Amino acid sequence: MAFELINAFKNKDFIVDLNLCRVLMENKVFPWILLIPRVSNITQINQLKEVDSIQLIKEMNYATDIMENIFPTDRINVAAIGNKSPQLHIHIISRTKNDPLWPETIWGQEMEILDNKEKEYIF
Amino acid sequence: MAFELINAFKNKDFIVDLNLCRVLMENKVFPWILLIPRVSNITQINQLKEVDSIQLIKEMNYATDIMENIFPTDRINVAAIGNKSPQLHIHIISRTKNDPLWPETIWGQEMEILDNKEKEYIF
Repeated sequence: MAFELINAFKNKDFIVDLNLCRVLMENKVFPWILLIPRVSNITQINQLKEVDSIQLIKEMNYATDIMENIFPTDRINVAAIGNKSPQLHIHIISRTKNDPLWPETIWGQEMEILDNKEKEYIF
Repeated sequence: MAFELINAFKNKDFIVDLNLCRVLMENKVFPWILLIPRVSNITQINQLKEVDSIQLIKEMNYATDIMENIFPTDRINVAAIGNKSPQLHIHIISRTKNDPLWPETIWGQEMEILDNKEKEYIF
């Protein structure tokens, strides 16, 4: 079956297709992107073929490097969670010690901060 | 400089040393381990040499496989965050749809659930 985004990801802005992953923009308040391996029916990293796992970590590092270069960054948070959206996706989020959620994670926090439509990029 | 755990990790139970990572037990309420590459002065995955990045994802997958085999698991959460503890460490957490925090992340939740000393492993 061909790769297809689940509905949760279909409305997110497309950034680029890397060799393995589609890169989408998750959020415009925090610098926050998603890497989605273009492989069908995969929910966790350990379900990828080894060659794809290796490509994935290279693309995670490539995306991390770019985020550090583009945005002020004290820490890049990298995570594959997916409790709510099962298709495998890796969050790459640029965090700074001055951002409004630091040092807590993005997840589990007041979503109005993340859903602020009035501004793009808080720093 | 030789590899050394930062203070935040020194009191955690040792499980095993893999080729790259030291594996520690983070929490006994949730099945939750940490993989810490035994490399000095590393805070993010993209600071590892490429060969070590590749070894890391193999060990992440190995640990994920074992967690799925040992514990009832609907989803393994895998994350490198480190906003509070800068030494690079990868969380590997076994989650089920019946656990008390599902589908939220472990981070940002009521810590008394995680700190329950009366019981080990909630499921």
